[in-house]
Amino acid sequence: MPRLNSFYLPPDLWPSAVGEHVVLEGQEARHMGTVLRTEPDQTVRLFDGHGHVGFFTVRDAGKRRALLEVVRLKESSAPANGITLAIGWGKSKRRNYLLEKTVELKGLGVVFWQATRSQGVVPAEPKDTWTDKSIQAAKQCGAAFLPELKTLPGGIDSLISMADEYDNRIVAWESDEVATFLSPSMLSSGHTLVVIGPEGGFEDTEARKLVEADFVPVTFGHSILRWETAAAYCLSLAMFGTQESS
Amino acid sequence: MPRLNSFYLPPDLWPSAVGEHVVLEGQEARHMGTVLRTEPDQTVRLFDGHGHVGFFTVRDAGKRRALLEVVRLKESSAPANGITLAIGWGKSKRRNYLLEKTVELKGLGVVFWQATRSQGVVPAEPKDTWTDKSIQAAKQCGAAFLPELKTLPGGIDSLISMADEYDNRIVAWESDEVATFLSPSMLSSGHTLVVIGPEGGFEDTEARKLVEADFVPVTFGHSILRWETAAAYCLSLAMFGTQESS
Repeated sequence: MPRLNSFYLPPDLWPSAVGEHVVLEGQEARHMGTVLRTEPDQTVRLFDGHGHVGFFTVRDAGKRRALLEVVRLKESSAPANGITLAIGWGKSKRRNYLLEKTVELKGLGVVFWQATRSQGVVPAEPKDTWTDKSIQAAKQCGAAFLPELKTLPGGIDSLISMADEYDNRIVAWESDEVATFLSPSMLSSGHTLVVIGPEGGFEDTEARKLVEADFVPVTFGHSILRWETAAAYCLSLAMFGTQESS
Repeated sequence: MPRLNSFYLPPDLWPSAVGEHVVLEGQEARHMGTVLRTEPDQTVRLFDGHGHVGFFTVRDAGKRRALLEVVRLKESSAPANGITLAIGWGKSKRRNYLLEKTVELKGLGVVFWQATRSQGVVPAEPKDTWTDKSIQAAKQCGAAFLPELKTLPGGIDSLISMADEYDNRIVAWESDEVATFLSPSMLSSGHTLVVIGPEGGFEDTEARKLVEADFVPVTFGHSILRWETAAAYCLSLAMFGTQESS
């Protein structure tokens, strides 16, 4: 079967049984009707980013609104193992890339935290455009889950406070004091929070506070990685590590 | 010591002893004089992309030409372990990203090969702009080596012919027949050639020819990775694998 076109349907609109109808609106409907010129009776794939995926028959595809009928529904349980990246906020042009790679490499979440060396101020809430970027990436790679996006305006202390909910806590700190390499096996089991600094790196006191709060300090080795490369590196090791254990 | 500004000096101009003078020209000289407004007596870092790194005192920095005196020279031997990515050619806007990540994640080389599903025709020779991109990335991350860049207009058969020079040969083939996950340990020892398809994937016959030629088929797992994400994933596992073994 050729790959079906994918569209995003928000979780609160997700249907519960075969034969039900759903309505697609906004940019997903435009994409279906105007960009892809989808015709009635075609089959498409819908997903809600929370593990629900379904096949639907198009009943009507207008420019702003599409009507679809459920053919088959699947539900995946949330992955038990994976990482959330807590990465220092920055005005990076590379943020979209980071979000895209997080989806493709199966990251469970991204937290943008306000670091001392952050350029600019992290927004109080994640932007809708970030979610849109994640949705586009999920359509491309067939992911059933979208990473959870958060912002943390409160700095290092609020990062430490929120860390209790994770099974493992790691800080990627480029320091001569740190000799442990980040490894896939450290990321293979449970939900791990991996903290990365902003583009200018941690202030020394920030990294020390994390280590005092029992975050395990690790290094990536001898290369100086850019912000989004550090993220892709962690995500790659985690994807490998969780596959090994699954 | 704060990080020194880095500049690229081609290998054929590399000096052999302290006290010698070298001349920087072209865009590196412009970068030094005009962009960074480097003054006489400042110390800078030069590298040749072949393992030579040195510290130099600026004697004169004009807009098109700079004169520098050798203060200290270092030489690293070429890494024994690492990967060369042979990736299907495409007109990708993401090629620069791929080159940048190859440098940061210590890839030894990139070969763009003409695949059946390649969009467009691979150039007969690597473009100077690709080398420039690698140089910029190496300046950023402090790499002493630039990846070797090649193009292979001859398709899958020429790829198989050139593979003899590598210690290990791997093909990343997304197929139900392939159950082995690519792992860091497969990439940790010797110089490994990792073949990745073009953006549309391998033709089945291409992948089969590689497997018949004793390339080890591997999968990345269950995620559908974009062209440049597949590359970053391989490079990340290889960087981890070679660090473990070093």
